[in-house]
Amino acid sequence: MNEETKKIINRLKSIEGHVRGIQKMVEEDAYCIDIVNQIQAIQSALQKVNSQVLDRHLHTCVTTAIRGDDATERERVIGEILQVFDTKAKK
Amino acid sequence: MNEETKKIINRLKSIEGHVRGIQKMVEEDAYCIDIVNQIQAIQSALQKVNSQVLDRHLHTCVTTAIRGDDATERERVIGEILQVFDTKAKK
Amino acid sequence: MNEETKKIINRLKSIEGHVRGIQKMVEEDAYCIDIVNQIQAIQSALQKVNSQVLDRHLHTCVTTAIRGDDATERERVIGEILQVFDTKAKK
Amino acid sequence: MNEETKKIINRLKSIEGHVRGIQKMVEEDAYCIDIVNQIQAIQSALQKVNSQVLDRHLHTCVTTAIRGDDATERERVIGEILQVFDTKAKK
Repeated sequence: MNEETKKIINRLKSIEGHVRGIQKMVEEDAYCIDIVNQIQAIQSALQKVNSQVLDRHLHTCVTTAIRGDDATERERVIGEILQVFDTKAKK
Repeated sequence: MNEETKKIINRLKSIEGHVRGIQKMVEEDAYCIDIVNQIQAIQSALQKVNSQVLDRHLHTCVTTAIRGDDATERERVIGEILQVFDTKAKK
Repeated sequence: MNEETKKIINRLKSIEGHVRGIQKMVEEDAYCIDIVNQIQAIQSALQKVNSQVLDRHLHTCVTTAIRGDDATERERVIGEILQVFDTKAKK
Repeated sequence: MNEETKKIINRLKSIEGHVRGIQKMVEEDAYCIDIVNQIQAIQSALQKVNSQVLDRHLHTCVTTAIRGDDATERERVIGEILQVFDTKAKK
């Protein structure tokens, strides 16, 4: 596993622990706004993972496809990026 | 634990499993866009938990504070809602 | 017109001018990313107007409704806030 | 001016009119939540313009840069896309 993959896994492990922490807060009847703040913090953390994965994607698959000769494949990768962008905007 | 709290806990447990599933996808070198889509799905799921918690908060703490006689406390709960709204908008 | 309303109107006038400016950028074939950045700046500015309007709403209509005796009306204003929160999260 | 540019301009003109309409709503003291809903509608409309501009950008500048031999330029366009993605996520 390369360094970058390890970093992504570690971030996801930390997010998993954070989600478990929120379960405990809910069980212990923590103040609602504190729970909401923690969930928003997780959403930010997930956003960072997403950027990291997208970064890698642009440098590998997208670059290969766009430099390649298959016009359909080029369209496909561009379409995917636009879709990610639109979905992200809806979060 | 009341029904609503159980529902929130169950959603969070399912989100936790979802995050673990993404770790596996990353380890197994899944296609980047599939990973991004799964992360966006988790962000939506967290958003639903947030709405649920906020719903409860408005019906309990906020209603009590606003119906109460303490103007400072009324300001405090309103300020908190605005802050959640602004942070959310930045996600 | 009170001070706060004037402030909101002024912000909206400035946003209107900003949108006209982007039309010019598009007509003059400006660099795409510069256009995207300007549009994102407008979205931030609109977000600030939204917070301002919501702030006023919480201090007036919502406070009146929640302090009132009409349970249906209380439910209505709370439901509206939750809906704004959910829609905002999708932008 | 090509068809696509005209479409973008028309969308922006319609958004400009929409912003003016909201000014009127504020002046006439419309219900806060109606104003908030209209602002959220404009943010969606701006999001569509953004997708359109980004679509064009990916098909022109980004494709040219990535197919080109200048590694620095390739890095630059990829970096810009990631930045747009991150900023958008914060709106």
